[in-house]
Amino acid sequence: MALLVDRIGELVTNDPTTGEGPLGLIRDAAVVVTDGRVAWVGPRTRAQPCDDVLDVGGAAVIPGFVESHSHLVFAGDRAEEFAARMAGEPYAAGGIRATLAATRHATDRDLTANLIRLADEYRRQGTTTLEVKSGYGQTVRDEERSVRIASAHTDEATLLAAHVVPPEFEGRADDYVRLVVEELIPAAAPSARWIDVFCERGAFDVDQSRAVLLAGKQAGLGVRVHANQLTAGGGVRLGVELGAASVDHCVHLTDADVAALAGSDTVATLLPSADFSTRGPYPDARRLLDAGVTVALGADCNPGTSYTTSLPLVVALAVRELRMTPAEALWSVTAGGARALRLDDVGHLGIGARADLAVLDAPSYLHLAYRPGVPLVRDVLKDGRRG
Amino acid sequence: MALLVDRIGELVTNDPTTGEGPLGLIRDAAVVVTDGRVAWVGPRTRAQPCDDVLDVGGAAVIPGFVESHSHLVFAGDRAEEFAARMAGEPYAAGGIRATLAATRHATDRDLTANLIRLADEYRRQGTTTLEVKSGYGQTVRDEERSVRIASAHTDEATLLAAHVVPPEFEGRADDYVRLVVEELIPAAAPSARWIDVFCERGAFDVDQSRAVLLAGKQAGLGVRVHANQLTAGGGVRLGVELGAASVDHCVHLTDADVAALAGSDTVATLLPSADFSTRGPYPDARRLLDAGVTVALGADCNPGTSYTTSLPLVVALAVRELRMTPAEALWSVTAGGARALRLDDVGHLGIGARADLAVLDAPSYLHLAYRPGVPLVRDVLKDGRRG
Ligand SMILES: [Zn+2]
Ligand SMILES: [Zn+2]
Repeated sequence: MALLVDRIGELVTNDPTTGEGPLGLIRDAAVVVTDGRVAWVGPRTRAQPCDDVLDVGGAAVIPGFVESHSHLVFAGDRAEEFAARMAGEPYAAGGIRATLAATRHATDRDLTANLIRLADEYRRQGTTTLEVKSGYGQTVRDEERSVRIASAHTDEATLLAAHVVPPEFEGRADDYVRLVVEELIPAAAPSARWIDVFCERGAFDVDQSRAVLLAGKQAGLGVRVHANQLTAGGGVRLGVELGAASVDHCVHLTDADVAALAGSDTVATLLPSADFSTRGPYPDARRLLDAGVTVALGADCNPGTSYTTSLPLVVALAVRELRMTPAEALWSVTAGGARALRLDDVGHLGIGARADLAVLDAPSYLHLAYRPGVPLVRDVLKDGRRG
Repeated sequence: MALLVDRIGELVTNDPTTGEGPLGLIRDAAVVVTDGRVAWVGPRTRAQPCDDVLDVGGAAVIPGFVESHSHLVFAGDRAEEFAARMAGEPYAAGGIRATLAATRHATDRDLTANLIRLADEYRRQGTTTLEVKSGYGQTVRDEERSVRIASAHTDEATLLAAHVVPPEFEGRADDYVRLVVEELIPAAAPSARWIDVFCERGAFDVDQSRAVLLAGKQAGLGVRVHANQLTAGGGVRLGVELGAASVDHCVHLTDADVAALAGSDTVATLLPSADFSTRGPYPDARRLLDAGVTVALGADCNPGTSYTTSLPLVVALAVRELRMTPAEALWSVTAGGARALRLDDVGHLGIGARADLAVLDAPSYLHLAYRPGVPLVRDVLKDGRRG
């Protein structure tokens, strides 16, 4: 059974060999889907007839968004803390501890329901690939079950056992790292694809982070790092040293950090919605792009610092605040996300790619930035199917 | 036939005599609607049974948004101009002239369809009262038909004949003002409730603006002003002098402007999505609030500088960028908008108000700012009815 997605006013393929420019644009295009994959793509006048037709009536079609950074295994919310922060009240210590406590007390069923609710939100807004981190358990049992719950819903489950130093280990971060290395990773790694760590002042230093990441690597996991969000610490260079697929946040970078990234396969993933919701500074995307670094964009959905699932908003912020062009932003939130997850069959619509795409209520992908806040995703196909 | 809106987890009434605080909050609330109006509101355990029930299952309910500033009578879009502006390319002169030309060439039917499309977008995102301006016709015929088309869809149609000096009158703004005063307003005023003018360097100066607004007043129209968006000109004080319901934008204000507003009934309407999409500076909302000025918020939907219909985004921007609290922002986008339109039966849910409300996919109105970009409006009632 072949499906013809027809009358696409503007198609973004992200395949420069298929269409024009870096986004591989084709006007008046069609896509043929077979077995959940792109079987053919090109000008609609050259498309073969198919059994099934999805006529999008001149709308723009883009590859589904690839979210490479989310924290969806948690319970509760922190709306009051957000309101206090926005009112300029000093950071209420233990914000993340509230989520830790709620998550530990939640049932698997509650955690799953919350994850599904948020994953559905992502999907309705055009996201078709979703990485999901653990990190609000911080015990062997709770991290193992967090990553197991995530892995039931995505192939991109990430073990973020070293997210914060849990209250039971206050002042004893090294002891917690030992627990992570010796017990937690062995127990949880079978459910995960990735290991991640929050390498930052107040969380884990470079040596502690290295120990965690190396233990993860030995357990067969790929490396990603929360790096250089609050300070220009050593997270980015550690990530490059260990061959990380991505270093995420990258708000505070030295010239050495930028040079290290430029000479590596490590993607810099920027998360401007976190900077929006914490009223923090934004990263300098132009500096990274000008240096030749591969840049991805994500929404960083989490209940503390960025409780959004809207990659369209991330595109708008990337254009407004990071001074990325609309084309760069769109590439980074699709193909860039795929690079950050080392996936080659998502984030583009070349032949053989997964038929993951979003139909916009707009004639051009430009409208994602031009029309901020407007729900513009009309329809989403994942593996060629709706819903 | 009475309708019971039941199991409201958090109800914002904007009526401090009905609930707690300036937002008049009630937890576990219900609203009884009769003949499209609020007949009763209070704790749900005290509600009388009704024939019809809308069970919102613990969701937050807020008054529908009141948009007091939109430009929806136009044709075409300017996505390429937006992308060029974001890339830092110098302003392409004649941006608005492209809309002028497209609007003049459009049929009534096309203009109406575009207006309905955007009004529906506003509605789906929670807006239940919508002011609509003319301003892309700039001939007697085209302004008259623009305001007539608007008035078929809203009681709040605004004649913005003096939006720009049209190309035919380049260098002869006074001649255009004379046309507006002598021919355009007499022809168009019967379809409008409001007169508006863009009082700004490069558009109309204070004397020209006064002439237009006075002619509008004489024709029975209420006064509103596009004021102090790009420079600290005399627009705000002119608005106060003429008893304007609202002066809009207010990005550049002198102390005298703030004092004039504070001593008046004129509302300051802030439009942060326009500052977002033009990368302009944001107004100082705190200065206005601290001085006791009534502040409204709007989205300023227009194809040039703010092509969004998302009042939830405006709330998020007001909190992030204008440093309004989530409560202040919510009040300003509901009750504040109503003040800016001098309406007393919308923007709140006290007894006798229109039953215009939005049901959120969230337990609290705080989520509008806490969850930026996420489509959180689940259901909308206008005059007690859906759709
Ligand atoms: Zn994160
Ligand atoms: Zn305007």
